[in-house]
Parts: sequence; structure tokens; C-alpha cells
Amino acid sequence: MNASFDLRLEPLADRYRAGDITPRRLVAQLREKALRLNDEYHVFIHLLSLEEMEPYLAALEERRPDDLPLYGVPFAVKDSVDLAGVPTTAACPAFAYTPGASATVVRQLIDLGAIPLGKTNLDQFGTGVNGTRSPYGECRNSVHPDYPAGGSSSGSALAVALGLSSFALGTDVGGSGRIPAALNNLVGLKTSKGILSDAGHVPICRSLQCITYFTSTAAEASRLLALTALDKPDPADAYSRANPAWNDGKAFGVIPRTFRFGLPQYPEFMGCAESAAIFARVAARLRALGGEAVEIDFTPFAEASRLLFGGPWLAERYGGSLGAFMEDNPQALLPVIREVLAPAREITGVAVFRALHRLQELKAQCDRLIKDLDCILTPAYPRPATLAELHAEPIRRNLELGFYSSFMNLLDYAAVAVPAGFLQNGLPSGVTLFGQAFSDQRLLSFAHALQGEIRSPRRY
Amino acid sequence: MNASFDLRLEPLADRYRAGDITPRRLVAQLREKALRLNDEYHVFIHLLSLEEMEPYLAALEERRPDDLPLYGVPFAVKDSVDLAGVPTTAACPAFAYTPGASATVVRQLIDLGAIPLGKTNLDQFGTGVNGTRSPYGECRNSVHPDYPAGGSSSGSALAVALGLSSFALGTDVGGSGRIPAALNNLVGLKTSKGILSDAGHVPICRSLQCITYFTSTAAEASRLLALTALDKPDPADAYSRANPAWNDGKAFGVIPRTFRFGLPQYPEFMGCAESAAIFARVAARLRALGGEAVEIDFTPFAEASRLLFGGPWLAERYGGSLGAFMEDNPQALLPVIREVLAPAREITGVAVFRALHRLQELKAQCDRLIKDLDCILTPAYPRPATLAELHAEPIRRNLELGFYSSFMNLLDYAAVAVPAGFLQNGLPSGVTLFGQAFSDQRLLSFAHALQGEIRSPRRY
Repeated sequence: MNASFDLRLEPLADRYRAGDITPRRLVAQLREKALRLNDEYHVFIHLLSLEEMEPYLAALEERRPDDLPLYGVPFAVKDSVDLAGVPTTAACPAFAYTPGASATVVRQLIDLGAIPLGKTNLDQFGTGVNGTRSPYGECRNSVHPDYPAGGSSSGSALAVALGLSSFALGTDVGGSGRIPAALNNLVGLKTSKGILSDAGHVPICRSLQCITYFTSTAAEASRLLALTALDKPDPADAYSRANPAWNDGKAFGVIPRTFRFGLPQYPEFMGCAESAAIFARVAARLRALGGEAVEIDFTPFAEASRLLFGGPWLAERYGGSLGAFMEDNPQALLPVIREVLAPAREITGVAVFRALHRLQELKAQCDRLIKDLDCILTPAYPRPATLAELHAEPIRRNLELGFYSSFMNLLDYAAVAVPAGFLQNGLPSGVTLFGQAFSDQRLLSFAHALQGEIRSPRRY
Repeated sequence: MNASFDLRLEPLADRYRAGDITPRRLVAQLREKALRLNDEYHVFIHLLSLEEMEPYLAALEERRPDDLPLYGVPFAVKDSVDLAGVPTTAACPAFAYTPGASATVVRQLIDLGAIPLGKTNLDQFGTGVNGTRSPYGECRNSVHPDYPAGGSSSGSALAVALGLSSFALGTDVGGSGRIPAALNNLVGLKTSKGILSDAGHVPICRSLQCITYFTSTAAEASRLLALTALDKPDPADAYSRANPAWNDGKAFGVIPRTFRFGLPQYPEFMGCAESAAIFARVAARLRALGGEAVEIDFTPFAEASRLLFGGPWLAERYGGSLGAFMEDNPQALLPVIREVLAPAREITGVAVFRALHRLQELKAQCDRLIKDLDCILTPAYPRPATLAELHAEPIRRNLELGFYSSFMNLLDYAAVAVPAGFLQNGLPSGVTLFGQAFSDQRLLSFAHALQGEIRSPRRY
């Protein structure tokens, strides 16, 4: 037996029930596989030793597979989210600290029976959506060696895509939980701000940052969300909020017989005809599922995107304890991160309020555009960038990748990246479904319907 | 007949129905009275001429009192809110412009039959809660000549308190719609942000500013809110929002047989024993009405207040078109306004985000403290300041007056100031009831119950 079998939640639970494998044997095998792959892909910054995993394994000893919803499910944790006793680096060695407690969501998952395998690589301080900005090595794409894994949750996407864990925790400010999903044929759920606790996540851009799930299927993301969504605000996360909508997953998978979905009036593919063709196919599939396509003006969404990386929100990255570290240790940052953040300290308070007012206007416009729609469909990224292109123009290519993702948190929307097929060269492509805050389970239901239609190939 | 009879909505409607008076005769008399009082009180910056009122009167000619909910109801408009064809000054002559259209809420009221009498005096650019900061003259208290009217909506409060209009429109960032109500024995409804349109209101502090109503009774405020609350966001006001709670006024006046109200654990009266005694009496009355008093820690509310006037939100006042005017015309501002706003341009973007994060933490704390309460009771102001005290220490005394009001909009709460009796010297005192956004009608119901208990003297 080896670990290259199906790690999805249901098949894995069946294996445990059948007694084909034990958690202890599974994680040992996955650890071996991870060690073999890590030199090439730089998935993990810290792969847990068997000794470090022992407490989680020991806790399962007296339990049976049906006792715990996530019994023995291996998962990976982005290294900007705390796991007790293991350093959190945010991909900056000088920043590293060892937390005494796990992040709330990590603790929830462990309490449900899941087993953390390790802390995954990322674009330093979550700043980027491409996966090349780490002193722990560049994250290559899981399918095509000339392309990046996407970021900033690069290692987490790779852990799932390479069959090293059932699911992984990522994070998302401007696309970090969605771009790597799309580039590696995964589902990436960027939850509505605050419905998962953010406590124990390095405060990079506090008002916007969210925890995300990488999974093979929308059904798994739905299940994980239902298991970990807060039923009341977490006192340790001031941005957490009670979720007024159903997110218990009970109605997951049900979509209306007929529905209306938005899509950009003039979708932007930056010259990539293959992306355009794939997107058109997905739109046609949504129509075949009963959807009426409604073209929407994408201008205000694109303007909101530009606020995030071109404007005053850069100053937010200096607004917390992390900012103090950055100010005191500029030499600890990668040159590209320093360059991206350089304007932050010159931004005035007046400029921030002007941007907040403009954002409010844009949100009002965008809300009006989407208010009668069941979901909105966009490409996950307009065109992929090769590693060579990213090396040549790191800032421009990164911005291009984030074209369809950067506005999401500023506008307080929920979003899910869904596999959408493959380019001729084999590189995975993806689409994004988004909607108002708290529509997570509805979006996952549409994603599930799309996955059923697309019949994306199994990857393990 | 003279205009010194009861101008409240119901008695006035009865007079119209009985044919005792016509709108034309009423406003002519009120105008004469206003002209007599204006030299002493500086209520109006611009009192409409009969010619300027003519279109509004003409529109009523073919209508009967029962045709329009506010048929012939005279009202006053704070001079930072637009009335078509009349200058908006915000109490800064150099800033004046003449709008072609009325503010949304003004237009709504006129369409309902109400008649604007004039534009009222205010603390310049709404910056202050005392009523002395205007080049159009200081606003004295309506009852006691040694005290101020309160501000910034000073003239609007005076217009109602002196019997010149049935109700008046004010505005509120940090107490401007509540402090003058309390000081003049009025109800001051600071609506939940966005449930009344803010379109046509000078953008002073856009993310926080609200339209308010001054009335004699909570019942009238309830009626006005029900008539003008938005049923969907106003495209002209990006901060407007659909109100998920009942605000149609149908359930107004009904309070639970038993309820829980919060009050500060250590209420602050800044040495004013009379304020303390009045507050204790109101709390006892709420208990007698069926309320269980729950003491709450007021520390986070007070810290939020300090953010407003001591911190980064000053920069918001420079964040819009108004800020550009202030930057270009510093000499056009009153010295005290210049002094208050002086730190604004030095505030960094990083400081703004730090303050936004801190505010979010405070809001989470405050929300937890009040979540199981039907309403919270505080003094409207801790102690009154005399005009002499305000002249001697204008910034300190203003901050003291705002101690119980400044946090409200930052924390996104609804609030209503309610008359609470009188000091020995005759000066009106007030309390504030507040609660979560959209609780406006519930708060007004409690205010109504309190007014019934207190039997505050009729003032005309």
C-alpha cells in the first residue's frame, strides 16, 4: 500500500472504517512522500516530525472513525497561521515565533479529528499571488514545471494537489486562496470575512484577511465550512461575525431549477485565447444547468482591485504588530516585498479616508449590479504567467494574475475558485463564483454543480 | 390668533382639519416670530422670504389636510443640508454655494406636504457640540440665557424649542443631533447610519455623519422616520443601506412587559450632582416600567469616543471636497475650528488603519456588552457648560459635553436623546437611549414610555 490513493474526505473515511489503514500509518507515508517532493516543490517550510504529530495521533487512539467528523484527516496549514509549538514564519525567517496555542480554526479542525502535517510555504507575508516570493524556495506548479503554483498560499495548494493532504488551510487578502487553487485544479473557498475565526493568523491586512480552504471538491469545502463556521463572534477575532445566512451545509448541492448569473460584459484575458475559450465553455455549462447569463459592467470591480495594491491599503500592512516588525527590519524582507510596500509609509490619513469613501461608492455600485443575481462568474485569472515572465516582471505579472481576485475582500464578498479544465499544455485553469457576504454555501452549491458537469479528472 | 400654539404634528393637523388656520397664514406668523427672535438667538442663517416659500405653499393649494401626511407642517433645515435655491453655508460664508436641488430627505418631506421655513445656524462645518462656533452668532439656550443651545445643530434645536417649527432636521457625527436636544428639552433622533439618505448633506465626515430629527415627542420622531426611512439604498448616497428591521412605525410605542436596559457601571457627571440625581430618577422610571437594570463597563465606549476627536478621524474631515476647501481657505475657518482640525493633515495612513483596527476591537467588546439588552441608558451630557465656561475653555468644555455622544456613530449604533427634567436653574437635562443599528423604532418606543412617565411640561 502507498499513500497515492484518494485522500478526499469520504473515500478516506471509508478506508478508515474498512480498517484498510490507520491514521498513524497514513501520516507516516504522507510524510515520506512529502520529504521526497519537497526539494522540487518547496511545499513545506516545516514538515512535522512523527514526534510532533504524536499528540494528534495519540488523541485518536481511543476513538473510532465514526466518532469524529474528521477522524484521521491529514491537512496542511499555511505558515502564516499558528500551529501550537511549531514556528510561524510567514516566510520570513527573522519574523519567526513559536506560538503556544494553535489558531482557532486549526484547533477546531484538530478537535474534529484532523491531523496537521506541516506548515506550508507562501509568498512572504502573504504579499503576492504567484508563489515565487519565498526565501524557502519557489513553489512550482503541480502540473506544469514552467509555471508557478500561484500564491500566496502556494504550499497549501500544492499539498492538496500533490496528494499530500486531504485539504489545506490558506488565507486570502487579494486572491491568495483562489489563484493557487485555479492553477492547481483545486477548489479554493475564500470564506466571507469573519465567518471563520481569524484568531491566530498573522495580522497582515486585518480588515480584509480571511481563512480559506483548499480541497479537491466543492462538497469537501462545504463540509469543512459547516464544521468550522462560527455560530457566534469569536472574542479573539474582532472581525469575526455571526453569520445570518445558512452555512451549516444542510442545503448544500441544491441549486434552483433556473437562476441568473452575472458575468463581465467584456471579460479580460490579456490576450490568452485559451483562457477565453475555457471561460466561454464554463458559461455555457452554467446556462445548460438552468442559468440565465446577465452581462455586468466590470469597471467598478476593476477599480476596487486597483485600490488594494495600488493604493492606501498598503498602509494597512504597516498598521499592526507586523508593521512594527517591518519598519524595524526592512532588511529582513525580500527585495520585491520591500519594493511593493515602499509607498506604504508615505500614505496620508487623508488619502486613506478618500480611498475609503471611494470604496464605499464602488461597493454601492457593485452591490446594485449583483443584487438580483444568484452568483457571478469570472475567470479565476485572465492569463497564466510563466515562471520566466514572473522573474522578468514580478510586480506587473503578479498584478495581472490578481485582476479577477483583488477586489473581493474590499467589497466584502464571498468567493470560490472552481477547476475549469486545462490549457493545451496541461496547465489547470479555473473560474471564480462570487456573491454577497454569507453566500458561501450557495456558491459552493453552484461550484458543485459545475464540477459535476466538468467531470474534472481525479488527480491522485 | 398668534403662532404660539401647539405645533406638534397631531394638534397641528387637527387645526388644519378644523379650518382654524391655513399653511400660508401659519408660516407668515412663524416668520414674523422668527424675525423677532433671531437677533437674540441667531436661529436662522437664512429665513425664507414669503416669496421663497411660495412654491411650497402653492403646491398645497389644491390639497386638503388629509391628502398629505405632513400637510402644512413647518420645519427648519440645518444649514449643512441642501434646500434648493437657498445658499448652503455650513456656517462658513466663504464656503457657501446655492444648490439646484434639495437634499433627498428635504425633498421627501416637502413631497409629503411639509414647508421649509429656513436654514438654521450651526457650529461651523458641524465641528462642535456646543452652539457657539458660528460667524452668524452664538446660539443661546432656549430656556436659560447663561447656557448655550448645544450644537452643532444649534439653530435646528432652537427652531423647535422656541416654537418656530414643528420639527427640524439636524445632523450628527459625534453628538450634534443629541446634545442640543437634551439642552432644549427635545427629542433628538440620531438615526442609524444610512437609513435616511445623506445625499445633499455637506460631506463633513462621510463615513459617520447622519441626518437627525428634532421633535417635541418621540411619537413625532417615530412618525417622521417611518415616512422618510429608505426602503432601498439611495444611489446618491453610497452609505445608505436597506434597513432589515422594522422601521415603518407600526409597532411604535409598544415595549415589552419586562426588559433589560444597560447603564454605565460608574456614570460620569463631572461633578454635577444635579445631573446625577436626574439620571438616577430616569433609571428608576425605566425600572418602574418593567426594566431590569444591568450595569455595563463603559470603558470601551469612552475609548471609542476619544478616537473621534482626539485621533485619526480628524483626517476624514479633509478626505472629501470639503477638505479641499479647508486646505485652500484656512483663513475662512473660525480660529477654534482651525485649532481643532490642525492635527488632521499630519495623521498618517498607518495611524488611520491602526485606529480602524482598534475601533473594530472596541466595537466587538461593546457589541458583546449590549447584545442581550433591549436598550442602554446614559446621560445625554455629563454636566452642562455655561457660555462663560465655553468661552474660557472652548475645546475642553466641548469634549466634556460630548462624553456620552461621541462614540455612537463610530460604533454604528442608533440613539435618541430624551428630555429628562430640569436642573434647579431651569436648564433642561436629557438622557440618551441607544442600541444596535436599526433599533431606532424600538428606542423611540422606550423614549415614548419615558416621556409619558416624566410628563415633561409643554413648552409653547
